[in-house]
Amino acid sequence: MKKAVILLSGGLDSATCLALAKRDGFKPYTLSFRYGQRHEFELDSAKQIARANGVNDHVIQDIDLRTFGGSALTDEIDVPKDRDENAISDEIPVTYVPARNTIFLSFALAYAEVIGAQDIFIGVNALDYSGYPDCRPEYIESFQIMANLATKSSVEGNKGISIHTPLIQMTKAEIIQTGTELGVDYSITHSCYDPNENGISCGHCDACHLRRNGFEAAGLTDPLPYSD
Amino acid sequence: MKKAVILLSGGLDSATCLALAKRDGFKPYTLSFRYGQRHEFELDSAKQIARANGVNDHVIQDIDLRTFGGSALTDEIDVPKDRDENAISDEIPVTYVPARNTIFLSFALAYAEVIGAQDIFIGVNALDYSGYPDCRPEYIESFQIMANLATKSSVEGNKGISIHTPLIQMTKAEIIQTGTELGVDYSITHSCYDPNENGISCGHCDACHLRRNGFEAAGLTDPLPYSD
Repeated sequence: MKKAVILLSGGLDSATCLALAKRDGFKPYTLSFRYGQRHEFELDSAKQIARANGVNDHVIQDIDLRTFGGSALTDEIDVPKDRDENAISDEIPVTYVPARNTIFLSFALAYAEVIGAQDIFIGVNALDYSGYPDCRPEYIESFQIMANLATKSSVEGNKGISIHTPLIQMTKAEIIQTGTELGVDYSITHSCYDPNENGISCGHCDACHLRRNGFEAAGLTDPLPYSD
Repeated sequence: MKKAVILLSGGLDSATCLALAKRDGFKPYTLSFRYGQRHEFELDSAKQIARANGVNDHVIQDIDLRTFGGSALTDEIDVPKDRDENAISDEIPVTYVPARNTIFLSFALAYAEVIGAQDIFIGVNALDYSGYPDCRPEYIESFQIMANLATKSSVEGNKGISIHTPLIQMTKAEIIQTGTELGVDYSITHSCYDPNENGISCGHCDACHLRRNGFEAAGLTDPLPYSD
């Protein structure tokens, strides 16, 4: 079985991405980040998802993006609530973290090189978050080209690194349907940007809206409780 | 004055790179990493260099590349000693850290985006370390293309990010001559991979050889003491 590094945030997208990597026959090595998030609930979810999937190794990297500031996910800026989907989709939100996916993929690349993997999975989505520049297909393609020039494998004539983005053109409903068919346990995933002190989702931030609307469109019941 | 992010390792290349950025009229913001190096002497040098150059802000990012392992600079593998320059140049050395420059440049990109800089300087050199895939011009060009797709500035129609590599085609002697003309204080730089407990350079690792040969070829005296 070929090894693959899977970026695992603890959200429903990355949990589905892991299930797809396993379905495609990859031996999963997962990678999460403690990057100065406002809360650790999504990391707890990532650990549970890794355990539930019997991954070979789950690495949590500590990095501190608060050193630079600049985002509602790491700063004390208010998370926007109850915006409609057009507003979510069309602009770069305050929850955008500068260069986050580039940093995450760079660590995934280091991890892949060390364990001898040539495949990296990331659950980015170009539809729900079209405002995020680093979720676009052309960004991912350029990262893959760069990755193949950056690493030993390119010099040594191997096949090179592939960045897999199986969710990139799927709607949230399609992601949830696909994951449900693959047996993903969405009760252990976490999506909310602004949960209460017990980790219960707010139901009103962009991530909660997209998740709830996705389950509704899929005709499925979200197993998570909400505080509203 | 335009802001620039300059990657500052504490070595002579990055100190010279900082001097060149200042000469070209940039307002410098420096970035260093505590990445699980075997020693902190190069970080002490980076702090001294930043202070001596009156940089606007010097950020030290803590990351732990030992999580993945795979390099003599972060693991307990022996640093090679007394190799000739062809051996240094032709192969990927055990001191190669997987994806290191990609990780460093990714953080520089985040920093640049937060402070509103569009210029990043990195003191990579394609001649001395041709064995490092992530020191090649084609790698840097691909990173710049990726960076311009990754960030807000590309979406918002700005000029975009430029990755400057002023040393990339210079010999070590040319770097030292250039820096000397610009007043770089090489006595506060650190190059050795394997210094003694007082930070005194070994004189025999690849970095020491390249540095000493560079000063000799430049007809200048290396102000650093060596333990041999």
